Amino acid sequence: MSTPTASQTAAHGPAHAELDRLWAELAPVGRDGVTGGYRRFAWTREDATLREWFAGECARRGLEVVEDRAGNQWAWWGDVDAARARGVQGVAIGSHLDSVPDGGAYDGPLGVVTALATVDALRAAGHEPTVPIGVVNFVDEEGARFGVACIGSRVMTGAMAPERALGLRDHDGVTLAEALRAAGRDPDAIGRDDEALARVGTFVELHVEQGRGLADLDRPVAVGTAIWPHGRWRLDLVGQANHAGTTRLEDRDDPMLRLASAILTARTAATAHGCVATIGKTRVVPGGVNAIPSAVTAWLDARGPVEADVREVVEAVARDSGTRPAAEPLCESWTPETTFDADLAARLSALLDDAPLLGTGAGHDAGILANAGIPTAMLYVRNPTGVSHAPDEHADVADCHAGLDALATVVADLGRRTAGPAGG
Amino acid sequence: MSTPTASQTAAHGPAHAELDRLWAELAPVGRDGVTGGYRRFAWTREDATLREWFAGECARRGLEVVEDRAGNQWAWWGDVDAARARGVQGVAIGSHLDSVPDGGAYDGPLGVVTALATVDALRAAGHEPTVPIGVVNFVDEEGARFGVACIGSRVMTGAMAPERALGLRDHDGVTLAEALRAAGRDPDAIGRDDEALARVGTFVELHVEQGRGLADLDRPVAVGTAIWPHGRWRLDLVGQANHAGTTRLEDRDDPMLRLASAILTARTAATAHGCVATIGKTRVVPGGVNAIPSAVTAWLDARGPVEADVREVVEAVARDSGTRPAAEPLCESWTPETTFDADLAARLSALLDDAPLLGTGAGHDAGILANAGIPTAMLYVRNPTGVSHAPDEHADVADCHAGLDALATVVADLGRRTAGPAGG
Repeated sequence: MSTPTASQTAAHGPAHAELDRLWAELAPVGRDGVTGGYRRFAWTREDATLREWFAGECARRGLEVVEDRAGNQWAWWGDVDAARARGVQGVAIGSHLDSVPDGGAYDGPLGVVTALATVDALRAAGHEPTVPIGVVNFVDEEGARFGVACIGSRVMTGAMAPERALGLRDHDGVTLAEALRAAGRDPDAIGRDDEALARVGTFVELHVEQGRGLADLDRPVAVGTAIWPHGRWRLDLVGQANHAGTTRLEDRDDPMLRLASAILTARTAATAHGCVATIGKTRVVPGGVNAIPSAVTAWLDARGPVEADVREVVEAVARDSGTRPAAEPLCESWTPETTFDADLAARLSALLDDAPLLGTGAGHDAGILANAGIPTAMLYVRNPTGVSHAPDEHADVADCHAGLDALATVVADLGRRTAGPAGG
Repeated sequence: MSTPTASQTAAHGPAHAELDRLWAELAPVGRDGVTGGYRRFAWTREDATLREWFAGECARRGLEVVEDRAGNQWAWWGDVDAARARGVQGVAIGSHLDSVPDGGAYDGPLGVVTALATVDALRAAGHEPTVPIGVVNFVDEEGARFGVACIGSRVMTGAMAPERALGLRDHDGVTLAEALRAAGRDPDAIGRDDEALARVGTFVELHVEQGRGLADLDRPVAVGTAIWPHGRWRLDLVGQANHAGTTRLEDRDDPMLRLASAILTARTAATAHGCVATIGKTRVVPGGVNAIPSAVTAWLDARGPVEADVREVVEAVARDSGTRPAAEPLCESWTPETTFDADLAARLSALLDDAPLLGTGAGHDAGILANAGIPTAMLYVRNPTGVSHAPDEHADVADCHAGLDALATVVADLGRRTAGPAGG
């Protein structure tokens, strides 16, 4: 097999049109009128709209959505449980529909929309699902609301205990348990879901690239190799609230000075250790113009190719004398280096005209599934500017169509291959 | 006259008890259960509760509340307009009931409660109001909601144009005009109120001290001399939103680094110029853990004994290479040095057993009225820790009672003196 032929691509014309239609339908949901960015947070009204939309599009394709115990939505084409009884696991494709605050349109939704259109493309091409094909929408990938990324895939795979997840709080102090209840879910039911997991023989997540790797290579689609080790730490910087006009400088205990030091130390240490480090979220209490704050909380995101280096960056912030007496950075999430199945990546690259192999600093549900032992692959679609997690995030229509063609090619091939041994 | 005699103080016993009662009534209004601090912001539900309470307490004393065109509440004991017709202006006492976020109980309310109890003390002492005595609750002194302090007194005296005030926005983007409408007020009616202003011959504001001047001197009450020049500036630090994991450090344009530089430069410059400078409020957009922010807004509060030095501090932040390309700091409010009427201060000090004379870095409605040409004085009540604009703000009950005695002594004296020439 190689890249889709001209005739195959032409055959996907209706699927391309369907992808465009799905894209247009999603465009207004959760979009902020001022920033143009998306605010699609887990278990909110916007999220419910997106989940209903997803279930509706599955139903249009005759597929029934089943939620796993973590709230992820799965729709299987083909009787996946009957296949399992025959020893055949399915091929799942999909991504997530939630966003970071003021996020772009592509991060997540491109993978979901392309998965749905891939079903259309395969059907148009006469594909018979002897290997069941699953379309999935993972819940709360970005962690924008409760602070931890990939809660849906982490809980489903057992990487995160349900008790820990349920106790996480959003900005307004609402726990995930309360949010689930408000969304009509039973918090007591959430947890690891071995049954849902066992249906998945292979998972392929298509995603917009979050960097300029493909733009520099002048290629539309790449295959993922690995995800850098990455984590989030909370820094609790405590001081003493007081009046901004009457408190002498020498009498102050101002946690804002600690924040300044933490920001600069994180950057310096990241530079020194070949990592990236970001403080993108803070909470200043009480936040009065004329009051010295009593406390500042800052969240540190640190990632890099080598785990020890990432740890060094966090240590440098912890040891920084300018942040004293800071509490020890509290690790809110940690994902070790994830290496995607190398054989699978090589096969996909060969299928796709020797598509380039790329690593990334971005976390994904695919990484969680890979770490749970499921053969997993990622396809990246070119991002001309590299901008992501921002309203300017972009991918050209032609590249999105190329992504769809690639995913259809990959799934058709995986279906044949997986079916081979099981059926033979 | 000198300090109240033992018999006078004893005569104020019922007024002391009334002060304690009023204090207990106010205690729960707008108090946060977690922090113990107050959140009493202008034109909110809590503010409405406080305004109704004030009007109720005036009514209990047979005094009718009249709002001026800026929404400040005035209640005159004695026919102030008839007195004016005779060429006699009144003596007004009072302060404000709103708070900074998580503010203390005393800043503002102590002056209002003491003003009400002073009416009781004077009546108990048989005082006849030949000079009308006014009790006032100024609206929105702290500026916690709309960013500019003393909006009530500024608008009333014409120091701030109503158009500018009405366009100010709170954290949620609600304008003052909208907030007024929501509170049942007509925004078109607000503005300078020369009639209300002309009633005030003298204004005395009693306030908890916001520093340790009296604690160091071991005295319960001081008389104010001046307020440092002070202002608020908004710093708009713009960058480029992007993904925290995939954007190389050298490709970043991270406004958080500019914030760090601004915080440290403000502190260094304030130290160098003998001023105080504070960044106590920030807004990080979009505020995602895994996103480089697109913009950070920080508010700089700077004050000092000498205006030129304060300006130098702001200039240092504006020129700071670490904040480039920052927009020029936008001055949101500026109050030049305020010197209270020196003769009046000397007279009050003499009346109060040579009470110490103190300057302050804190702004007050008294400063706005003084700058509008009204003979104005302030009385400070000892703050044992100096902490203010924080839940720990405190004054001992005995000192609050001493403050009441002092205010009653001052008002009785001013009433006689002002009445003299006008009545003679």
